[in-house]
Amino acid sequence: MSAMAPPDKKLKGLVAATFTPFTAEGEINLSQIGPYIDYLAEKQGVKNIFVNGTTGESMSLSVEERMMLAQKWCEKAEEKMDQVIVHVGCMSLKDSQKLATHAKLIKADGIAVIAPSFFKPTTADAVKKFLYEVAKVVPEVPFYYYHIPAVTGVNVPARDVLEGIEALIPSYSGVKFSSTDLMDFGQCVSYSQSADWSVLYGVDEQVLAALALGANGAVGSTYNYMGCHINKLISEFEAGKLDQARKIQFKVQDLFTYAKKCGFDLGVNKQLMNELSGLDLGPPRLPVMSCPEVHALSEKFHSLFPAC
Amino acid sequence: MSAMAPPDKKLKGLVAATFTPFTAEGEINLSQIGPYIDYLAEKQGVKNIFVNGTTGESMSLSVEERMMLAQKWCEKAEEKMDQVIVHVGCMSLKDSQKLATHAKLIKADGIAVIAPSFFKPTTADAVKKFLYEVAKVVPEVPFYYYHIPAVTGVNVPARDVLEGIEALIPSYSGVKFSSTDLMDFGQCVSYSQSADWSVLYGVDEQVLAALALGANGAVGSTYNYMGCHINKLISEFEAGKLDQARKIQFKVQDLFTYAKKCGFDLGVNKQLMNELSGLDLGPPRLPVMSCPEVHALSEKFHSLFPAC
Amino acid sequence: MSAMAPPDKKLKGLVAATFTPFTAEGEINLSQIGPYIDYLAEKQGVKNIFVNGTTGESMSLSVEERMMLAQKWCEKAEEKMDQVIVHVGCMSLKDSQKLATHAKLIKADGIAVIAPSFFKPTTADAVKKFLYEVAKVVPEVPFYYYHIPAVTGVNVPARDVLEGIEALIPSYSGVKFSSTDLMDFGQCVSYSQSADWSVLYGVDEQVLAALALGANGAVGSTYNYMGCHINKLISEFEAGKLDQARKIQFKVQDLFTYAKKCGFDLGVNKQLMNELSGLDLGPPRLPVMSCPEVHALSEKFHSLFPAC
Amino acid sequence: MSAMAPPDKKLKGLVAATFTPFTAEGEINLSQIGPYIDYLAEKQGVKNIFVNGTTGESMSLSVEERMMLAQKWCEKAEEKMDQVIVHVGCMSLKDSQKLATHAKLIKADGIAVIAPSFFKPTTADAVKKFLYEVAKVVPEVPFYYYHIPAVTGVNVPARDVLEGIEALIPSYSGVKFSSTDLMDFGQCVSYSQSADWSVLYGVDEQVLAALALGANGAVGSTYNYMGCHINKLISEFEAGKLDQARKIQFKVQDLFTYAKKCGFDLGVNKQLMNELSGLDLGPPRLPVMSCPEVHALSEKFHSLFPAC
Repeated sequence: MSAMAPPDKKLKGLVAATFTPFTAEGEINLSQIGPYIDYLAEKQGVKNIFVNGTTGESMSLSVEERMMLAQKWCEKAEEKMDQVIVHVGCMSLKDSQKLATHAKLIKADGIAVIAPSFFKPTTADAVKKFLYEVAKVVPEVPFYYYHIPAVTGVNVPARDVLEGIEALIPSYSGVKFSSTDLMDFGQCVSYSQSADWSVLYGVDEQVLAALALGANGAVGSTYNYMGCHINKLISEFEAGKLDQARKIQFKVQDLFTYAKKCGFDLGVNKQLMNELSGLDLGPPRLPVMSCPEVHALSEKFHSLFPAC
Repeated sequence: MSAMAPPDKKLKGLVAATFTPFTAEGEINLSQIGPYIDYLAEKQGVKNIFVNGTTGESMSLSVEERMMLAQKWCEKAEEKMDQVIVHVGCMSLKDSQKLATHAKLIKADGIAVIAPSFFKPTTADAVKKFLYEVAKVVPEVPFYYYHIPAVTGVNVPARDVLEGIEALIPSYSGVKFSSTDLMDFGQCVSYSQSADWSVLYGVDEQVLAALALGANGAVGSTYNYMGCHINKLISEFEAGKLDQARKIQFKVQDLFTYAKKCGFDLGVNKQLMNELSGLDLGPPRLPVMSCPEVHALSEKFHSLFPAC
Repeated sequence: MSAMAPPDKKLKGLVAATFTPFTAEGEINLSQIGPYIDYLAEKQGVKNIFVNGTTGESMSLSVEERMMLAQKWCEKAEEKMDQVIVHVGCMSLKDSQKLATHAKLIKADGIAVIAPSFFKPTTADAVKKFLYEVAKVVPEVPFYYYHIPAVTGVNVPARDVLEGIEALIPSYSGVKFSSTDLMDFGQCVSYSQSADWSVLYGVDEQVLAALALGANGAVGSTYNYMGCHINKLISEFEAGKLDQARKIQFKVQDLFTYAKKCGFDLGVNKQLMNELSGLDLGPPRLPVMSCPEVHALSEKFHSLFPAC
Repeated sequence: MSAMAPPDKKLKGLVAATFTPFTAEGEINLSQIGPYIDYLAEKQGVKNIFVNGTTGESMSLSVEERMMLAQKWCEKAEEKMDQVIVHVGCMSLKDSQKLATHAKLIKADGIAVIAPSFFKPTTADAVKKFLYEVAKVVPEVPFYYYHIPAVTGVNVPARDVLEGIEALIPSYSGVKFSSTDLMDFGQCVSYSQSADWSVLYGVDEQVLAALALGANGAVGSTYNYMGCHINKLISEFEAGKLDQARKIQFKVQDLFTYAKKCGFDLGVNKQLMNELSGLDLGPPRLPVMSCPEVHALSEKFHSLFPAC
């Protein structure tokens, strides 16, 4: 959240989906948030954050914990980040509304809502009805739809959710599109061309493909520790140097291929962040299993990428 | 919860997975719980309830609402129901622990926990670790594992979760098995043969198959309105009259086939209960869509089944 | 094919889905068919065979090979088997028609056709149209539909395929139902009650569940080597001794659980048959991988089941 | 097949996956092949063809029909096409070997093999073993692996199949990659960078994304009737005019979105080709359902795309 950023500023470039810091005992650890933001801004060149999302284990947090975390992120981000987007999606609509109201209070630059995933909506109308009920309690806060069907099991094309969303939710500002379906993605870009909306891509290992199709930026967990390299990928892409951009993308894919062979889940990802950043974000919470050590993986990282 | 039921009584026979009563405005409606219990006991011959489960839309409730509901169910069930099982599963372990502690306070006959479904455990160990953390806060309350992979996306065989569970969770008392995988189900029955554990089946449209494989009972949403018929199915089965039992089962399947062609989701199911029972349980909550009228479906029901 | 069996005789009881004998070099080995039939009849008490099906690796055979095999099976089965059903399904309708015509020539007791699985029909009408085009070239030969959606990827309920099939295909005689969806299965049984049609179940590890729902018999690969035990399961079931039937079923499930941990594919299954029967059926063909030795698995078998 | 093309020429640019011409009665119609090739070369600017593939309904053809078709395609393509790739994959290895031998005789520029899909290999080794057995009968003919997991159900990453394939199959020349998994695709491109291999993309509605990741060309059914537009997309991409390339890609996506709402299967696709090209390729074969008329769809096409 930047004092300089007008509320209607278009969200673009890299956005780090932040991990939630825990103590060794599993309690939220607010003291790490300040250093975390400094690390992103200074070491990775990342100026936007998406907090309490999937990477942030929001579904494993209580409503109260989510509020405390969001507040601290917004507070510490002031003058250091361009935008702080607070994810307020829950299984329960009431809880989401409570979090949205709180996000406004703490002056978040935007809120995002994932489709509810226990009872899975099967139509775009049902998804939009849920999004609308959250958005309407804070009509002045920029609203983002968070599309991640492989996790939610909600297999409604994002493009269908976007149809007419600007009339239903005037605060609609963009979509975080975390799916490999690039036909749906392209249709979202195409629908968004004349407007001031962001289409942000969320599958880090193929972000170059999304840029080619017109992504305005990208949100992801790996930008926490390889943001500087992906910033380079983006600048090579924008300069028309596809060969250079591809080289970086292939390294990311090499890392993922290596990591997946060991089981690359959120617990591993968080521990990799701990090792690469030097921050102490602690273990994840159950049901994500903690992962004591990922030395081989961080070595692989260093063998692929130079220091930032 | 019956004053007569010892806490270690084996759960068997039919268990209704109850709907949560809401007002027309969508607030929980505690006043309907008393009449609901009378209806189950007197009209359907159902003497056990499973509250705040999937049918009860627990994931769309706040923690506070779940506690208020559970308390009322236990209070009203006294001397009318044999057992009240309170489902306390949540995405957040902390919330589950809070609900488990509360369930003990209100003298529930047992608690049940579903596998967390946003971050999906991929091993039996990870599932058990989560279950253990909930169960351990109330070690004297009978504990049930609620297995429903088609909803949770957690594709770990129940039999693997049961392996050694009695040592890890001494209060383990049974499994609500809601899956069509009858090899896994049979293995659960087989594992449970020498013990005082319940293996309860949760796919209403093929309960006869589960009885043949040794189910001790069944938990389901349709037993709210067709319990008396399924009680008959069970007694025909126990009397060795498979032909008669099959006739009832096939009628259930006819009803489901008919219903599925119209879209048989939880909203439709709840409205069918409203129409068949005369109770006023209200609409469901988003993201489940409300369903104003299911007259054709209740007519189909009456064409298949005589009055209880 | 029995000289005594009238062509309209209802198919019931156990049916072995036969393996195709190959030489060590991978050529079809007709010389093993006679001993194979004797083994089934004398050691396993199995009196019906389903040849050139999935277990028979029909899709890895040329049309000519399938004809040579079918002819030998029919010839050797005379006076030893009650019925020989020849599977004639192919990806190519023309090839299926050729095989159906040939099956009539060699006096098969029936033909069966699987849904084509490369181009997957998505409606019951499309499936039936394909079945009809095969059946119509031999209208006097009993016709069976072979439903195995997990292999074909054709997710059309069998019950929908059966709707009106007797008018479209007057030679329709039954369905081999190889799916765990027992609602669909029950609806097939229900639809078939007033007619002289067979509903045969094809998931060996849960055959008891299907018997409870009214199966007329069962077709499967494991009946090649455990037919005598499943015959016992069926007779216990028919005598109302469910406890005894369950014990056998649970042993089958124990075997499968054990086998699946080692990778229980068709190659393993065939090698297990070689070891248990003493027949020399050779290796499978690519793409099924051959499996040099399954000693641990055959030991597990002997630990569970007494000699026939 | 061009008299001028050396056998080792790298395959690149657009490749039309041809439809198989049938008469109204469903017999193969060789007379349409000459005009079809002229249409591709003259109207669409397409200079390579992939025959008897998925679009060509190869699995619905007999081995003899496939040979007759392949021969005519090679004959008529002479001096008009750069390369003719004959797909020789079958469920049966023996049939594939027969087709491969024939493809050499008729001087095809290459052969392609799909993974067998009835018995689905589950490891890269099993896939490669099958490919090897086909390739080895014609070691001098360039060999392509055809990867299309959504159709075959063979979920082995293409990258794993490529690992070491050049040692096993010295004639290996490339992969037709028909999947939306761009991480796997990128890894195939990355693996192929130092070699003279083609990596061709096969999901027409997101070909621009694949070009960004380094695709050498594209194989698809829609290039039969929109090759000229995709040639333009490629040239805009190569000139660095991503905005222009995107506009064309989005039109393709608009067409697909529209078509999918009506059920865009191979039968519809073939009829669209008939209407747009004026060729008489006849109906498809069962199990693909014929589609009498797609006037609305061809109008949509004309509303999106100018004449070539």
